[in-house]
Amino acid sequence: MRSIAYLGPRGTFAEAALRAMPHAEGTELSPFPSVTEALDAVRSGAVTHALVPIENSVEGSVTSTLDELGTGEPLVIVDEQAIPVRFALLARPGTTMADVRRVATHPHASAQCRGWLRSSLPDATVIPAGSTAGAAAGLVESPTAYEAAIAPRLAADVYGLHVLADEIGDNDEAWTRFVLVALPGELPGPTGADKTTLTLFMREDHPGALLEILTEFSVRGVNLTRIESRPTRRALGDYYFSVDCEGHVADARVGEALAGLHRVCAHVRFLGSYARHDGKEPRLRPGVTDDDFASASAWLAGVRGAD
Amino acid sequence: MRSIAYLGPRGTFAEAALRAMPHAEGTELSPFPSVTEALDAVRSGAVTHALVPIENSVEGSVTSTLDELGTGEPLVIVDEQAIPVRFALLARPGTTMADVRRVATHPHASAQCRGWLRSSLPDATVIPAGSTAGAAAGLVESPTAYEAAIAPRLAADVYGLHVLADEIGDNDEAWTRFVLVALPGELPGPTGADKTTLTLFMREDHPGALLEILTEFSVRGVNLTRIESRPTRRALGDYYFSVDCEGHVADARVGEALAGLHRVCAHVRFLGSYARHDGKEPRLRPGVTDDDFASASAWLAGVRGAD
Amino acid sequence: MRSIAYLGPRGTFAEAALRAMPHAEGTELSPFPSVTEALDAVRSGAVTHALVPIENSVEGSVTSTLDELGTGEPLVIVDEQAIPVRFALLARPGTTMADVRRVATHPHASAQCRGWLRSSLPDATVIPAGSTAGAAAGLVESPTAYEAAIAPRLAADVYGLHVLADEIGDNDEAWTRFVLVALPGELPGPTGADKTTLTLFMREDHPGALLEILTEFSVRGVNLTRIESRPTRRALGDYYFSVDCEGHVADARVGEALAGLHRVCAHVRFLGSYARHDGKEPRLRPGVTDDDFASASAWLAGVRGAD
Amino acid sequence: MRSIAYLGPRGTFAEAALRAMPHAEGTELSPFPSVTEALDAVRSGAVTHALVPIENSVEGSVTSTLDELGTGEPLVIVDEQAIPVRFALLARPGTTMADVRRVATHPHASAQCRGWLRSSLPDATVIPAGSTAGAAAGLVESPTAYEAAIAPRLAADVYGLHVLADEIGDNDEAWTRFVLVALPGELPGPTGADKTTLTLFMREDHPGALLEILTEFSVRGVNLTRIESRPTRRALGDYYFSVDCEGHVADARVGEALAGLHRVCAHVRFLGSYARHDGKEPRLRPGVTDDDFASASAWLAGVRGAD
Repeated sequence: MRSIAYLGPRGTFAEAALRAMPHAEGTELSPFPSVTEALDAVRSGAVTHALVPIENSVEGSVTSTLDELGTGEPLVIVDEQAIPVRFALLARPGTTMADVRRVATHPHASAQCRGWLRSSLPDATVIPAGSTAGAAAGLVESPTAYEAAIAPRLAADVYGLHVLADEIGDNDEAWTRFVLVALPGELPGPTGADKTTLTLFMREDHPGALLEILTEFSVRGVNLTRIESRPTRRALGDYYFSVDCEGHVADARVGEALAGLHRVCAHVRFLGSYARHDGKEPRLRPGVTDDDFASASAWLAGVRGAD
Repeated sequence: MRSIAYLGPRGTFAEAALRAMPHAEGTELSPFPSVTEALDAVRSGAVTHALVPIENSVEGSVTSTLDELGTGEPLVIVDEQAIPVRFALLARPGTTMADVRRVATHPHASAQCRGWLRSSLPDATVIPAGSTAGAAAGLVESPTAYEAAIAPRLAADVYGLHVLADEIGDNDEAWTRFVLVALPGELPGPTGADKTTLTLFMREDHPGALLEILTEFSVRGVNLTRIESRPTRRALGDYYFSVDCEGHVADARVGEALAGLHRVCAHVRFLGSYARHDGKEPRLRPGVTDDDFASASAWLAGVRGAD
Repeated sequence: MRSIAYLGPRGTFAEAALRAMPHAEGTELSPFPSVTEALDAVRSGAVTHALVPIENSVEGSVTSTLDELGTGEPLVIVDEQAIPVRFALLARPGTTMADVRRVATHPHASAQCRGWLRSSLPDATVIPAGSTAGAAAGLVESPTAYEAAIAPRLAADVYGLHVLADEIGDNDEAWTRFVLVALPGELPGPTGADKTTLTLFMREDHPGALLEILTEFSVRGVNLTRIESRPTRRALGDYYFSVDCEGHVADARVGEALAGLHRVCAHVRFLGSYARHDGKEPRLRPGVTDDDFASASAWLAGVRGAD
Repeated sequence: MRSIAYLGPRGTFAEAALRAMPHAEGTELSPFPSVTEALDAVRSGAVTHALVPIENSVEGSVTSTLDELGTGEPLVIVDEQAIPVRFALLARPGTTMADVRRVATHPHASAQCRGWLRSSLPDATVIPAGSTAGAAAGLVESPTAYEAAIAPRLAADVYGLHVLADEIGDNDEAWTRFVLVALPGELPGPTGADKTTLTLFMREDHPGALLEILTEFSVRGVNLTRIESRPTRRALGDYYFSVDCEGHVADARVGEALAGLHRVCAHVRFLGSYARHDGKEPRLRPGVTDDDFASASAWLAGVRGAD
């Protein structure tokens, strides 16, 4: 039976994203204190899935997620979700703006609400918390520590809090993308608007390596949607690449590109093929559909005398 | 007269890195609470330089630095420094390990010392702080809040603290790279072991863009040492590239590559040419030295009848 | 004063092509028995120019011309011309088709008129001649050797012959392209629809050489119109490349591509920039006009602090 | 039963090449007057094979062979042979150098012996013939027409002639390469030192086509040994490419490259995989052996969940 871990505590953006996915319907959802613990719960079989953040428009990639998926015990991505990041100022019922002298939140969140804090609460002290939802939870657990928290709006419902102000972030366009992760096994079928995630380790630090990698994709008409060099943690200057490309491993062009990478790289880790959250279908250049591959294979078999 | 801002408070890794650089000699060094504030101090002329972290082996790129340099008011990098990340457990003189029940530090630092904390202080509570050096400062400012802080060793000297345990991080190889930033103006001269940093904005979301960019470098024999796609903050899926390449803009091959990028990209921002912290010289393939460029130019001038 | 050698004898397609060019107007035109002798006449100063065939739709490249220009004493192409290849059956006045038992012509020409010969003169014997125009001349010089010659129509006027049948070639679309050659010196100015010819010698037989060469062109948006590998005559399997590209060496993109080739190749020989015979202007991709190059150079100079 | 056509008449370099091949052993060999007629004999079933010249170090490609194979009724190459081009001066027994006033030969041969003729027979008249062996045959058939012929040495044995002078060509390194052609059917097996010949027709005249083609080869580590653009005979400026690459279509890397070309090109014609005449094995870069392809396929099948 399905059960899903998510980056907690209750009331996080992860929970908000999860509740917007069909997978959450009638499923047990359990908060975990860190990305690593949520993923380990999948690895141990304690849960069947975990939803963790992977990319944020303001902070960039979530490196703990990239590194856990890229180099930890094997897991695969089976779905993704992206939601806007909207911060709210939450307080215990009865608290007014005039009462707020101390505001708790995660340092990233206070950085993203700096403009609003300066104009609306110029005299408030900001108290760092381990997470935004944790700051909201603290309003209930330690009522004397601070008067308000910056947190996702969902946390108000979860903890019985009041929304003093909504959408107080400086950047309307902020978003976070989450991935739903499971043990390797059956893949979601192709939908025509898919994405495939890979971790690529180079054979050695040779200058043309990245160009080689990109050529393996481009020669089969596969577009990249994200690429990042990440230090391997082994030595300063030793990198691996984390890559998202358009298409599903079941697509002929993606499969051939992956096999090509397998020959060129020291190691390729397949991290899943899954439906894009935005449903955007790839614009394919001529000659790279499954039909084109099938007809080329049939021609080749004829040339080789296999028929 | 030279004066250098750094990411504070006093006792940070940034200060430790700065003290290891010749620039610090006899120079006024001022801590600032954030990367943005340190950089703004350069922009306003309050200081001549700022030293800020740009990349960390564990957390990856420091996105606030990348985004400030990539899209904020123009600044250039004039030097870089990398130092190992070594965490120490600091306390007020007289405190022993047995006294420690609460440990304050930045969430990233506690994550990187999780193994040591589990084995050496299994019962201690970890209290989140805005920065590691700030946690050390707190030992002096609020003596009753907690007994110890995880911080750079330098913070012991700065705040008159005692080192209860040193090198307590789980990863011996962790490092952080810092860049010294100034207003655009005279560039440091080429040393033969230089690096150039760029921000590249694409003309549109066209699939082959990254391959095009890499080809502009590779055709002139210029190797990349770092590449990263970063969201532009405008819309989900709209990216720019942050790139480090080997060589100095005064090198003919680098200059021609940059001019090529200027023609291919919507916008190129030059973020400086500076000596590599590791002094590593590029391995050049035949045909790409300044002499090769000069002799090709002379030949071309002859062919064009300019002589 | 201008004087032009051409591949003779009188009445050849070369003469026909030359008479269609403005250069021929009021100029002394002298036939030479071979491409090499015509080109040597330019080298020695006996004439100022020579018109020689370089490519034929049926026979392909004229290798003696390619090799003379590619590896002989330096000459440059200053113009080109292409004309349709139309064969006529010529005879002395008074000869009728019924009289024709022997037809002289060059073996290539008889091969191209095989269909017509089979249907119209099934019983005639074909006598090989050194050139088509020479066969026509022979009708006058040795009246008993044969009754008719297959030759360019122009030869009828030149030698006072009668046209028994016109356009007797099997292929209506056949054409020959000629180049006008001079000593290196002042180049024709760019017209906006130019072509540049090069000979490229590789550094060694390394597999990626051709890809490297093409990339030097493509990265600057310069299209090739012809490429051919030619044996160097040194050893079986040792090749050079003969290349035509769009544009004039005075164009910034072509100049930079040539300088790039100069760095990559063992040797580059420039064989001229000249107006295309068909006046076809290149379709340029964004970023490769002279204005784009000038603005990139100005930007680079600013970055380098040269202004 | 095997029977081989060759470019005649008897005594040609084609016959000399054929006699040096194991295929000739105990086989009926028949001279044909032209490449087209020799190839048509294979097409009609009159013979099982034909040996025709395809490339000559002095004259370049034999365009009639390229065009017949590239665009005529389908045939495939099953073997190749290369021999040095050595010209001899042949005469009827009893003739001395002093008797020689007229020398018959093909115009290409007289061009290649120009130096020797100038120094050794400065007063002799050169009479054009349709072929060198034909000139030798003429010494017997029409004893009064001329005294000597420049021809392959083999023609002396064939026609009972005397060798007045041997190796009289100006270029010691001249060679001709021949191909043995058959109807499409069973392919020769791979030997580890093979070559594959293709004709590639482009989808349209688009600038990057050649770069695309080369990338299909290079991304699979397949090296080209010859490439040529050939006019299609349809229109001035409309080309196809004739290509030789290293390896056998049964090799995984060559097969995948051919399938890739099939998707990119308007049309690909496979002209055979056969042992190289020089037995030279390819230097392969890492990742492109059959084992590498097999292990990548197995990995991909695992990723796709096919096992």
